[in-house]
Amino acid sequence: MEYMHTEIKAFCNKILMHVGVSEANAKLVTDNLVTADLRGVSSHGVARLPVYIKRIQLGLINPNPNPKVIKSTSTTVLIDGDNGLGQINVTDGVNRAISIAQENGQSMVGIKNTNHIGICADYVLKVAKEGMIGFCVGNASAHMAPWGGIRPILGTNPISVGVPAGRFPAIVLDMATSTVARGKILLAAKKGDKIPLGWALDKDGNPTEDAEKARFGTVLPFGGPKGYGLSLLVDILAGVLTGANFGSKVPSMTEDFETPLNLGAFISVFRIDNFMSLKQFEERIEELINEIKGSPAAPNVDEIYLPGEIEHNRMQEGLKKGIGLDEKVINDLNLLAESLNIAERI
Amino acid sequence: MEYMHTEIKAFCNKILMHVGVSEANAKLVTDNLVTADLRGVSSHGVARLPVYIKRIQLGLINPNPNPKVIKSTSTTVLIDGDNGLGQINVTDGVNRAISIAQENGQSMVGIKNTNHIGICADYVLKVAKEGMIGFCVGNASAHMAPWGGIRPILGTNPISVGVPAGRFPAIVLDMATSTVARGKILLAAKKGDKIPLGWALDKDGNPTEDAEKARFGTVLPFGGPKGYGLSLLVDILAGVLTGANFGSKVPSMTEDFETPLNLGAFISVFRIDNFMSLKQFEERIEELINEIKGSPAAPNVDEIYLPGEIEHNRMQEGLKKGIGLDEKVINDLNLLAESLNIAERI
Repeated sequence: MEYMHTEIKAFCNKILMHVGVSEANAKLVTDNLVTADLRGVSSHGVARLPVYIKRIQLGLINPNPNPKVIKSTSTTVLIDGDNGLGQINVTDGVNRAISIAQENGQSMVGIKNTNHIGICADYVLKVAKEGMIGFCVGNASAHMAPWGGIRPILGTNPISVGVPAGRFPAIVLDMATSTVARGKILLAAKKGDKIPLGWALDKDGNPTEDAEKARFGTVLPFGGPKGYGLSLLVDILAGVLTGANFGSKVPSMTEDFETPLNLGAFISVFRIDNFMSLKQFEERIEELINEIKGSPAAPNVDEIYLPGEIEHNRMQEGLKKGIGLDEKVINDLNLLAESLNIAERI
Repeated sequence: MEYMHTEIKAFCNKILMHVGVSEANAKLVTDNLVTADLRGVSSHGVARLPVYIKRIQLGLINPNPNPKVIKSTSTTVLIDGDNGLGQINVTDGVNRAISIAQENGQSMVGIKNTNHIGICADYVLKVAKEGMIGFCVGNASAHMAPWGGIRPILGTNPISVGVPAGRFPAIVLDMATSTVARGKILLAAKKGDKIPLGWALDKDGNPTEDAEKARFGTVLPFGGPKGYGLSLLVDILAGVLTGANFGSKVPSMTEDFETPLNLGAFISVFRIDNFMSLKQFEERIEELINEIKGSPAAPNVDEIYLPGEIEHNRMQEGLKKGIGLDEKVINDLNLLAESLNIAERI
């Protein structure tokens, strides 16, 4: 089913405002969720709204947070997110990081006491649009074991970086540190499908193709010990360093409905003209992109893409033609509206 | 064959000084190379010395560089390495990054016009020992194709991060962005061994188990498009942003003996107490490490390690008991000494 982004946004805003989120804050959250759907990353799209709403209703997320600066220097800020929706806190954090970097050359912003931050590409893209380089990571519920282990201690903790690219769309690297999103395993389990070896371990630490067993086990990091190292690094920056939860103390967003998540995020932004003029940088990065795009493709490959390029193309098309959303996602949103006594349906 | 680190260092210092490297600079280079051997990363150890010497003799590396600051702000520096040995330039860069961060909270140092920087773990470990978090990347000769491509445009560009860990050894993530070091493919080709699928493509972009074909093809990034994205990011930070060579313009260190490499490196350092006291951070990271080390291991796994822990243990043992070096590496060093009319042999 295809929907215009404006239509979904209006519907989701209504739902968020119904549970007490201010109009401005609802817009931030909805923009981020719909951006994920537009980019084809439906695991981080409006499919997440029902669990956000449930947590707000249970008092586990503060619908109108009042984030406070706990500590700051000329280039760094540590923020207590006041248990707000992640998109509200990280948008605030990115805005601060951008303005500090504009003034003082670079910045680092840590956030604790926040929730699921949504699609990170959205934040670093905003930095790249300001002609700066941005880095954003967040920790997440523990579903991944340390390399060699079997107990989930780390999240699929995403890493994102945005780089301005002159006349090309910004380069946007945004990746989970697991081989695949846990959502794909849950989906396979629901359908009774097998999963490829390398995606997950069962609860005893054995490699498994059984999605149902994987569901009760752990997801595997991408690239083995390397992905484990990167996931750990995200937990250190976003969790340990900010004062947020870390390790297995991070509760499950979708299974624990008694404890606030207290997630953390970490953002770093810097000006390119610390090193060379933006113009010179853009000429150089255009040269690199031209070399990559113009180089010969492997057999059965149509085109070579830069990180974030496929998602950018999807978004441009989706903005014009609408977004394809899963029937189940739509049903869940309509059921949610019904449960809230909202008359509209999508 | 086992050698004491002091013995190898003395021998390598003599060789470096013989081709004009000052005693202080020789010591920096040798310490870095031998640290790699001590950590068990022999691909970056004293085996590299012959090619360094050859490039110095051919006038492709400046044995006594005079690095210059091209651009600076209160927290950033861009350095022209004056075509020095990478270890000399990056040690200088890391020292600057440490002292700027100590004074102003954080720092970024870009370096252009340098050479092979050796083992990065060495640099970020130095930062961690100062109670700060350090990040260091460098670009390298193009041996990796962009994801979906067949022409080598990117290097196996390493990423390293060092984090102080209280009573535990510092956490040191140091990894190539390829699945394996290209050296392993060259070694398999020499021995006539097969290589596993996933290591490399042949020159036409087909997956190959034939090491000889892989030698003339490209190495594959770890984790597919994710490793490609990270390798590209390193080339952007270390190459594009610093004014160094980038993309396929980076010559091959081991095959092109006519052109200086003009490699780049990028270092970032920040104080933990921008966010919380070092003591509090250390307590928290010790808690995370204890949780990881104390968690149950998968079948056939003896112990769960933190990034850099295995290498740290090897180093402690190697410092006491000596380093095992390949016979071929020793022969090459002795031949090198002979060719330079140095009387000593190792």
